[in-house]
Amino acid sequence: MEFFQYMPLTEARDLIARSLTGIAAASETVDLENALGRVAAEDRIAGESLPSFSRSTVDGFAVRSADTFGASEAVPALFSIAGEVAMGEQATIQLLAGQAVTIPTGGMLPAGADAVIMLEYTEQPDADTLLAARTVAPGENVVSQGEDIQTGSVILEQGQRIGPQHIGALAACGCSRIVVCKPIEVAVISSGDELVAIDQSPGIGQIRDVNSYALGAMLTQLGCVVRRWGIVKDSYEAFYDILTKALTTCQLLVISGGSSVGARDYTVKAIAALGAPGVLMHGIAVKPGRPTVFGMIGAVPVFGLPGHPVAAMVVCQQLVKPVVRLLARQKQPFAGFSVPARLSRNVASAPGRDDFITVRLRKQGGEFVAEPILGKSGLISIMAQADGVMHIPADKSGLYDGEIVEVLLLKGQE
Amino acid sequence: MEFFQYMPLTEARDLIARSLTGIAAASETVDLENALGRVAAEDRIAGESLPSFSRSTVDGFAVRSADTFGASEAVPALFSIAGEVAMGEQATIQLLAGQAVTIPTGGMLPAGADAVIMLEYTEQPDADTLLAARTVAPGENVVSQGEDIQTGSVILEQGQRIGPQHIGALAACGCSRIVVCKPIEVAVISSGDELVAIDQSPGIGQIRDVNSYALGAMLTQLGCVVRRWGIVKDSYEAFYDILTKALTTCQLLVISGGSSVGARDYTVKAIAALGAPGVLMHGIAVKPGRPTVFGMIGAVPVFGLPGHPVAAMVVCQQLVKPVVRLLARQKQPFAGFSVPARLSRNVASAPGRDDFITVRLRKQGGEFVAEPILGKSGLISIMAQADGVMHIPADKSGLYDGEIVEVLLLKGQE
Repeated sequence: MEFFQYMPLTEARDLIARSLTGIAAASETVDLENALGRVAAEDRIAGESLPSFSRSTVDGFAVRSADTFGASEAVPALFSIAGEVAMGEQATIQLLAGQAVTIPTGGMLPAGADAVIMLEYTEQPDADTLLAARTVAPGENVVSQGEDIQTGSVILEQGQRIGPQHIGALAACGCSRIVVCKPIEVAVISSGDELVAIDQSPGIGQIRDVNSYALGAMLTQLGCVVRRWGIVKDSYEAFYDILTKALTTCQLLVISGGSSVGARDYTVKAIAALGAPGVLMHGIAVKPGRPTVFGMIGAVPVFGLPGHPVAAMVVCQQLVKPVVRLLARQKQPFAGFSVPARLSRNVASAPGRDDFITVRLRKQGGEFVAEPILGKSGLISIMAQADGVMHIPADKSGLYDGEIVEVLLLKGQE
Repeated sequence: MEFFQYMPLTEARDLIARSLTGIAAASETVDLENALGRVAAEDRIAGESLPSFSRSTVDGFAVRSADTFGASEAVPALFSIAGEVAMGEQATIQLLAGQAVTIPTGGMLPAGADAVIMLEYTEQPDADTLLAARTVAPGENVVSQGEDIQTGSVILEQGQRIGPQHIGALAACGCSRIVVCKPIEVAVISSGDELVAIDQSPGIGQIRDVNSYALGAMLTQLGCVVRRWGIVKDSYEAFYDILTKALTTCQLLVISGGSSVGARDYTVKAIAALGAPGVLMHGIAVKPGRPTVFGMIGAVPVFGLPGHPVAAMVVCQQLVKPVVRLLARQKQPFAGFSVPARLSRNVASAPGRDDFITVRLRKQGGEFVAEPILGKSGLISIMAQADGVMHIPADKSGLYDGEIVEVLLLKGQE
């Protein structure tokens, strides 16, 4: 099999992880309201316990739970209403046996009380008297001081991409400034004599530059600052010039096209000329994506991706996005978000290479079904229809209708 | 059951959809490179067919497929090499029987050729002679003119959130400017005498303002421009004033807290006072989230969300995010991205209300497992740990260990 001459995917991943050892994104401090989607650059430790006082989780009456013993609708427990806790204020009342205190959701539990009975289970025959139709257990409808978050506990882990739920937890703990990774600046370059800018009408034999937009979008989605350097013609000098310029600012360099086995392959030469260690991989046993190049120019990882848009997207998802996660020191950098799905038909594959197939996803009977999108390689229409990409590992010669596959999603989900 | 007095979730959804009939986000035109994550405001139609010329999908030799008839490794087909197609240039050669032309991936198929044989299956005993060890079918390794995208076909549907794959397809078709929905401006207001700003140290009885950050993040994630109006004290005048100001610019108003059944409920009064039709729903049969208020002040939808952070997030996910999608005229506005998962334990629920339970997700045996996060309502730590929220419909009295549930994800996935 011709694929055996190329580097296996697992080996490529190891090589990439090894090459990036000790290289990491810089960090910066941002306001909490700008931290969404960023990656935590360090563990964030709670500086205080939450809640800072015992408080009610319902609207009702603070009581001693023991006083509700045996209460029911038929035989309600009787309380005298000793006052009211105002929202946001210290509870100054000292609750005595047989007393109840009106308390709002979030109100501070008065001393002497150990539970709150919900408004719904009470009646007030007069302003001073309360009938409770249910028992409450000690601690019921109360969050005790320190029960939620302990001082010293980790509220945000280094490497975590910050979602709305983390924003909420950080706000609660008073973390108004967060140390996050600086966005990776990625230089994206398209190469090929056949390429024209997207606002131009391609002449005979020419096509528009798809990859710098599609790849740029994939990396923007991951929080990168993408700078598109435009289209470079297939010549060594042109490559060398543009790479030299891009290297002055970027932390990751992505070239698409120009990496096919062929006479005009100047990417490899230019990478090699620009700095050690240079090209580390030339070709991977992955379909689509075989002509992929990976190297390092000093501390800057460089990819040469295939010119085929689908192949470029697959390799971006499998290898380039992981580099961004590695630089941000994220856990499991090679594992993007994937969903298990049942395959809708047999799919053949050659053993000895990892295959990736674009699929549509639909739900059926409580599971995802993955429908491979068939068609010739390089079709734009295949890319446009794809919800994600499924993987056939190198040790398989195909997958059967009904097997469970993992589908890596192509777009961010809402 | 006390929940029967509140509006069922399905009815609340209908009410919201009905209330927003005829109200939509404005549109604007953006450059393709800024279109990621935006929602298409109109169908985009291909103005030309793709590819504009028949081209090779591999590096190899353009041939007449009939000339490879019977070719094998043992008995290769013999061709004379008649020239080379240069990348990005018009193929000027007219291929004759028995001739082959060198062609790169993406190169234009010369007249007379109908297939391309891959470089790998050929040998060149000398510069003018080619031996092909395989047959090729007509059209093999060729994308014919117009085969990918037809003039007049829809390449982007109105209501579609634009992902990298759409960006790629639009670039290919020369769509450098895209008509998208303007971001919805959302005013987020936190209310409650107990609230202090997140950079302040709460006094006894006070807590920090969590919701305006967590809700703001959820809506930012959906592409909204969120403006936090800060904390408003529980008084009718304070509410009226801040709502009046916020209404001058926002298209959606979200108030958290201040909607609990209680003495200080001024949200409802202020909404009613500010414009017709005013409050349309006060309380939903949803746990958590019962004290939710929905209304319309003229064309501006207004929500009063519960003060509990988890409840506020659940209702934001179930009702507020759908309003954003409705305004952008997205398909299936009430269905966010959810994944099927197997429940890891029995969960009880009261029939007659829709329950939402925060869960952690993990993968096991080719499927997602949803582990309900147990704990008292209102705990920040529950929110921080949650990967998503699962739904127990109103007609169920709980779900069993092993059942399949749908989990709506809380954070955007990479």
